[in-house]
Amino acid sequence: MNAQRTADLGFARLDLDRGTRTGTPEVVYAAGKTPAQTVACLAALLEGGSPLAWATRVDDATAAAVLGRWPDAVVDADARSAFVGELPAPVGTVLVLTAGTSDGPVAAEVAATLAASGVGCRRVDDVGVAGVHRVLAVAPDLAEADAVVVVAGMDGALPSVVAGLTDRLVVAVPTSVGYGAAFEGLAALLTMLTACAPGVLVVNIDNGFGAGVAAARIARSAQR
Amino acid sequence: MNAQRTADLGFARLDLDRGTRTGTPEVVYAAGKTPAQTVACLAALLEGGSPLAWATRVDDATAAAVLGRWPDAVVDADARSAFVGELPAPVGTVLVLTAGTSDGPVAAEVAATLAASGVGCRRVDDVGVAGVHRVLAVAPDLAEADAVVVVAGMDGALPSVVAGLTDRLVVAVPTSVGYGAAFEGLAALLTMLTACAPGVLVVNIDNGFGAGVAAARIARSAQR
Amino acid sequence: MNAQRTADLGFARLDLDRGTRTGTPEVVYAAGKTPAQTVACLAALLEGGSPLAWATRVDDATAAAVLGRWPDAVVDADARSAFVGELPAPVGTVLVLTAGTSDGPVAAEVAATLAASGVGCRRVDDVGVAGVHRVLAVAPDLAEADAVVVVAGMDGALPSVVAGLTDRLVVAVPTSVGYGAAFEGLAALLTMLTACAPGVLVVNIDNGFGAGVAAARIARSAQR
Amino acid sequence: MNAQRTADLGFARLDLDRGTRTGTPEVVYAAGKTPAQTVACLAALLEGGSPLAWATRVDDATAAAVLGRWPDAVVDADARSAFVGELPAPVGTVLVLTAGTSDGPVAAEVAATLAASGVGCRRVDDVGVAGVHRVLAVAPDLAEADAVVVVAGMDGALPSVVAGLTDRLVVAVPTSVGYGAAFEGLAALLTMLTACAPGVLVVNIDNGFGAGVAAARIARSAQR
Amino acid sequence: MNAQRTADLGFARLDLDRGTRTGTPEVVYAAGKTPAQTVACLAALLEGGSPLAWATRVDDATAAAVLGRWPDAVVDADARSAFVGELPAPVGTVLVLTAGTSDGPVAAEVAATLAASGVGCRRVDDVGVAGVHRVLAVAPDLAEADAVVVVAGMDGALPSVVAGLTDRLVVAVPTSVGYGAAFEGLAALLTMLTACAPGVLVVNIDNGFGAGVAAARIARSAQR
Amino acid sequence: MNAQRTADLGFARLDLDRGTRTGTPEVVYAAGKTPAQTVACLAALLEGGSPLAWATRVDDATAAAVLGRWPDAVVDADARSAFVGELPAPVGTVLVLTAGTSDGPVAAEVAATLAASGVGCRRVDDVGVAGVHRVLAVAPDLAEADAVVVVAGMDGALPSVVAGLTDRLVVAVPTSVGYGAAFEGLAALLTMLTACAPGVLVVNIDNGFGAGVAAARIARSAQR
Amino acid sequence: MNAQRTADLGFARLDLDRGTRTGTPEVVYAAGKTPAQTVACLAALLEGGSPLAWATRVDDATAAAVLGRWPDAVVDADARSAFVGELPAPVGTVLVLTAGTSDGPVAAEVAATLAASGVGCRRVDDVGVAGVHRVLAVAPDLAEADAVVVVAGMDGALPSVVAGLTDRLVVAVPTSVGYGAAFEGLAALLTMLTACAPGVLVVNIDNGFGAGVAAARIARSAQR
Amino acid sequence: MNAQRTADLGFARLDLDRGTRTGTPEVVYAAGKTPAQTVACLAALLEGGSPLAWATRVDDATAAAVLGRWPDAVVDADARSAFVGELPAPVGTVLVLTAGTSDGPVAAEVAATLAASGVGCRRVDDVGVAGVHRVLAVAPDLAEADAVVVVAGMDGALPSVVAGLTDRLVVAVPTSVGYGAAFEGLAALLTMLTACAPGVLVVNIDNGFGAGVAAARIARSAQR
Repeated sequence: MNAQRTADLGFARLDLDRGTRTGTPEVVYAAGKTPAQTVACLAALLEGGSPLAWATRVDDATAAAVLGRWPDAVVDADARSAFVGELPAPVGTVLVLTAGTSDGPVAAEVAATLAASGVGCRRVDDVGVAGVHRVLAVAPDLAEADAVVVVAGMDGALPSVVAGLTDRLVVAVPTSVGYGAAFEGLAALLTMLTACAPGVLVVNIDNGFGAGVAAARIARSAQR
Repeated sequence: MNAQRTADLGFARLDLDRGTRTGTPEVVYAAGKTPAQTVACLAALLEGGSPLAWATRVDDATAAAVLGRWPDAVVDADARSAFVGELPAPVGTVLVLTAGTSDGPVAAEVAATLAASGVGCRRVDDVGVAGVHRVLAVAPDLAEADAVVVVAGMDGALPSVVAGLTDRLVVAVPTSVGYGAAFEGLAALLTMLTACAPGVLVVNIDNGFGAGVAAARIARSAQR
Repeated sequence: MNAQRTADLGFARLDLDRGTRTGTPEVVYAAGKTPAQTVACLAALLEGGSPLAWATRVDDATAAAVLGRWPDAVVDADARSAFVGELPAPVGTVLVLTAGTSDGPVAAEVAATLAASGVGCRRVDDVGVAGVHRVLAVAPDLAEADAVVVVAGMDGALPSVVAGLTDRLVVAVPTSVGYGAAFEGLAALLTMLTACAPGVLVVNIDNGFGAGVAAARIARSAQR
Repeated sequence: MNAQRTADLGFARLDLDRGTRTGTPEVVYAAGKTPAQTVACLAALLEGGSPLAWATRVDDATAAAVLGRWPDAVVDADARSAFVGELPAPVGTVLVLTAGTSDGPVAAEVAATLAASGVGCRRVDDVGVAGVHRVLAVAPDLAEADAVVVVAGMDGALPSVVAGLTDRLVVAVPTSVGYGAAFEGLAALLTMLTACAPGVLVVNIDNGFGAGVAAARIARSAQR
Repeated sequence: MNAQRTADLGFARLDLDRGTRTGTPEVVYAAGKTPAQTVACLAALLEGGSPLAWATRVDDATAAAVLGRWPDAVVDADARSAFVGELPAPVGTVLVLTAGTSDGPVAAEVAATLAASGVGCRRVDDVGVAGVHRVLAVAPDLAEADAVVVVAGMDGALPSVVAGLTDRLVVAVPTSVGYGAAFEGLAALLTMLTACAPGVLVVNIDNGFGAGVAAARIARSAQR
Repeated sequence: MNAQRTADLGFARLDLDRGTRTGTPEVVYAAGKTPAQTVACLAALLEGGSPLAWATRVDDATAAAVLGRWPDAVVDADARSAFVGELPAPVGTVLVLTAGTSDGPVAAEVAATLAASGVGCRRVDDVGVAGVHRVLAVAPDLAEADAVVVVAGMDGALPSVVAGLTDRLVVAVPTSVGYGAAFEGLAALLTMLTACAPGVLVVNIDNGFGAGVAAARIARSAQR
Repeated sequence: MNAQRTADLGFARLDLDRGTRTGTPEVVYAAGKTPAQTVACLAALLEGGSPLAWATRVDDATAAAVLGRWPDAVVDADARSAFVGELPAPVGTVLVLTAGTSDGPVAAEVAATLAASGVGCRRVDDVGVAGVHRVLAVAPDLAEADAVVVVAGMDGALPSVVAGLTDRLVVAVPTSVGYGAAFEGLAALLTMLTACAPGVLVVNIDNGFGAGVAAARIARSAQR
Repeated sequence: MNAQRTADLGFARLDLDRGTRTGTPEVVYAAGKTPAQTVACLAALLEGGSPLAWATRVDDATAAAVLGRWPDAVVDADARSAFVGELPAPVGTVLVLTAGTSDGPVAAEVAATLAASGVGCRRVDDVGVAGVHRVLAVAPDLAEADAVVVVAGMDGALPSVVAGLTDRLVVAVPTSVGYGAAFEGLAALLTMLTACAPGVLVVNIDNGFGAGVAAARIARSAQR
């Protein structure tokens, strides 16, 4: 417990050594922060020694503020993420599958998170179980991956099928895609939690960031 | 609206012409009735001219009472159903799939309902998507069926996969099999309602009777 | 499992043989897609050999993009659906009932889906059970239909009454019409799932497309 | 606010003048009380001047304790209610309808409550909407009633139909009859709250007592 | 069942004799209808012989359309209701209480409904239980009313207190006033359904119309 | 952070200094523990220097095991609590109110917790708001208390009324008393969370222990 | 019960003596009121003798109206609160912790409430448990506070940790910060209600006002 | 897709090559199966070539049946699991933490699953966050583990704290320990899904089996 430096900005108290302790630095959750607050947090993290500072749930105003301060920052609009500093060289591979095109933005957040975490990513989109041959077709990709992230809304059935085809860990991300009884992602969440195949682990609805961090840990651990 | 004879037992008011109007006679829901009430209802339906009288959700005491009154009644313990009178000769075929062995009692109710409705039934059990080749293996059965009933608890993912493989209507029955976030069948129910493949229609949790009646209508219509 | 051609657009992986396998081609779910993505999907489906390509949940921008690309496309604004190609000649008849005028857009989606599926449609609107004689008045229409679709919000009570009057299968569509304890369609959904009359099958809230596909299968099967 | 005598039993603080203030004396809710506590409450109410003391949700042990103390007490086993003292002579008429036989115990509680409140009762059981002619057949009874109580589980659709046929107030009682998506009466409760016909007022699930008290007030008011 | 004339507008099928059957004419629910549809419905009801035609959930555009067609229509903006024709002379009195000022619009809908139903109304606003002496102060008003409507959001506790003070029926209207665990009126709804005092009947959240219709029936019945 | 001694029993890791840090020693939650485990925990706490060791949610078998080991232990059957060691002398006073007799066991747990915490307790039972004069009658008790605990099931309306009568903090305990829409205490919980009077703080359903600990802290703080 | 003056504004009935009875004057809940109504309420409270009148949930239009009437009013934009009159001198100290920066607006409402209640406040922001050393670092602040308010969204885990470190009462405020399974604050609310450490009391989601009032009562009681 | 042998028992269709495909053989879910069915499944799996056959959710009758057939089977009563055949030699280490003693049975299922999967396990029980020093004390164990499983009921706060201390993946298992607002594990489930620290992945409530399988995959991957 000696990696515990803190940067006190008044409205925020940044955990400068989180990267040292957990392998992932503190990442700024921009929702509910003003653009100026997000910029200040990123700056403090960089000053605290982090080679890469990074924010999620970035809206247009915040993206503009970040680019205003750091013109060479990378803003990934699909992923709603902003990065300041150097992206690490990737090791290993995580396979990211989506059940449908509408799940794309969440998969983009997974991919951006993997990039920032120094892990390689291969995406295959729109392999929903209504055409299950599309799922079977990714078997070779499964065999080459260190971990699999499956992003699906509506019925959220894809992880159950995938987990029966591979010995890789499946990180399942329910999305809020759908309407009515999809209940903003609740249906997919429950499906994934009750998947009839073991080896499926679940994150919060639309939480591409969390899935990316987790998959990166698995991949790095496998590559060690 | 002239098929509307009623048998008034005081505690019950039986709809004697429901078979004429809807193709399925009034069926006695034994839950919440005393054994004597169920027996009285069955007797009144037979007296009203129904060749077959029939009760669902039959417990042991009610089964005994039925057999006491009609020694040649048929009690299907798995299906918790009792039948008095002649079963019609079957026409057509409905394919009944279960995702797991534990879904068996609900599938038994589907099968018993089909038999009472004069429709043939083929059951294939335990074809869960965790071993998706088991699903693909039923493709020939799908092609020969007039309709498909899919019974599944836990993640309820099986109907989504099946519906992508066939042009038959898929009647999906969520079951209360599972624990925790299965929430007594709610997870499977939501999955089926949000199935990514069209052609899936849903009945209440554990409602093998309703699924059987519906599938029988489709099969009879196709055989007409 | 040999009908499995796929068109890979990167962001989408279209299931070109779904029509062959299931009787309904892959239909583009435009919600969550950009107009350009929807147009590209429609184009790929047409190139894949589908005589009719079709999108649901189409907003104004997407409708404009579709019409820009295919000036003779048909956009049904009520149904929020767009069609490119030839509509098949209709066979059979599905009766579509609504409980109230506000359920109209969902019924429009049912009707559009039936048209695209080559099945005839007869609509009778606003036959809510508060004036139950209006329901009784449709008895002749019920007798002539191959299947019935009942669209209802608020209490969702209409399918229970209709199913007691007919031997046709009743496809029930709960809508999000209502407020307060209607809970965006949940009340109607639960009512329909627990309908006291068998022969009622349920689709997702506001899912006119799914109801249309299912009813079309029944009608075509009956007409075979 | 001068009708406020209280009998303090330590574990209970009986509101002796509630009958004077509200027309209904304090009634003992026996669930969660020991038999001895219920007996003591009834005794205190009688001593406080109430001509009739009364308990609901009475189990067998409590019924025995009441009969042990007052051998001429009336215990209505169906209604799970016990009465000590004189039942008032009935005025007016409340029509009590059930959708199915299994709703009988709740209707029995309504009837017992009406009797204790000095209001006449006419019961017609099992008039579910799946055979809607049974509902139409009660039209003459509706016209003669001062108020209508409708007791229904499962889809809870009966009050919507009844309220469209009468100018009497409809007191709707959802019951816990049903399974799966009936969710212990929640489905019926939501249906009744969202009834498409006005003139429907709702009480708690299985609350025959509350419905009886309310209907009695309306009947007495109409007979005044 | 001979009061069953219907006006068929295609998109609507108006129940012209509902007033004769139920005491309240069909009232147009304007939500989900276009202004033109609402106007057409009102016109058809007037042509059908109703002396007063009436719409609820009227937005600005619909109000303007109504006034455009009938310049002497009455639009009650608070109540979001529009009336065309003659308001009946009031008989009897209903007391309408609100727990807080923010419940005002729902109480306005109750009051407008009472006026259209020919029943007198007395409103006392903001008598929440946090200052319970304000509730006690309305005791004289309770004694003079034919029925009481209590409108409350947040904790919805007011009906429980009022029902213990009066022998009048209490119609409880939960409102969506509040935030967080008020869950858009769910908290108040559950409170009212479980009120510890009998004599409380409940309508849907924010359903001032339903409460008004019900209270009018009670008042008219008491005045007969 | 130097008060952190731990007793490691393998299956449990007791926090021996919690009393020093928080004013309340670790208390053994007996639900889900075997009687032997609970006894072992109590013994370890006493050995760790606690003058009083204490368990909640104690069933009969555990009570017997505790008395077997420590014949002079105090078992409060109503409160389902067991105490070994010396009870401290009480300071201050907490007023504990219940809305109904059935809430008694939870109030008993509050009282037992206060006794174990060295704080005086005055209980007044059955002061439900349906007879609001009973609430007004406790005003003198409110003025003399250091804090108030209000225990209520069903509608949970009592804390809202009490909090408007006093400047004492009101600790509200929802109970699972009730049925139907009481949803095992959920209705009361939501009512209390949305109480229209400030000064109400809420604990978990049936959590008499938590309410007692909190009230004791307030009372001790006021007496300091 | 003699402190019960009321100011009747028609749409509002202000409880002028609530400050005398409860220590906190009636505070105007501006949500659902027009700016003019809020101004009128504040004016009436000042005329009724309150030295400070105060409104919560104030939007921009209401803030402008208040400043238009009382140019020296204090509007706290973060806290969405407006104050007219003299703020009392502070006594005691309440420690206000937030788990994250996004919880700031709710903490601002706590702080403003404390100021208006005459109690001192120390805020420490962003001490989430993901960097638990930040929590341990506030131990000295805990020891000096009269009470602690913990404001947290997402997992709402902070109060459980804090309550294990202090003998101060912990007032827990769940916030609606988060997405997906945070369900607008429900996740944090449930976490806090089931906190494994006693001494945690909970208010409604985002209810900084209620937390501030409660904490002020504790602090004033401790300082007496 | 060539590892797809199936053993057809009629009531079950065992996936004999699941171990080859996914690293974990098909495991028999004994809930909902008769003892004879479970025994038959285990026998078929052994005959299919699996060196170890294994069942979860085993009750006493099933355990007896298994031991009757295979006297040297291992039945782990805490874990409700039965094993027939050889347990593999363990590699690597998974750290299994529980928040409380009552979470023990679920942790036992994790441990049994790890043993059957050939992975080492270290358990530390009762490290709840109410005594956070107990959590900090496991830091050395975290550093030595390949993965961490955290089992917690009630508030489910432990994974959030642990994930901030380690770079290991945290598999979080909510349990049904608790009462009231714990809602059978829902509170803990939501807490874990919204954990403020990334690196937390979640399984179903009480799903020790799923957590064990997932942790075993991570450990084996890290040891490769």
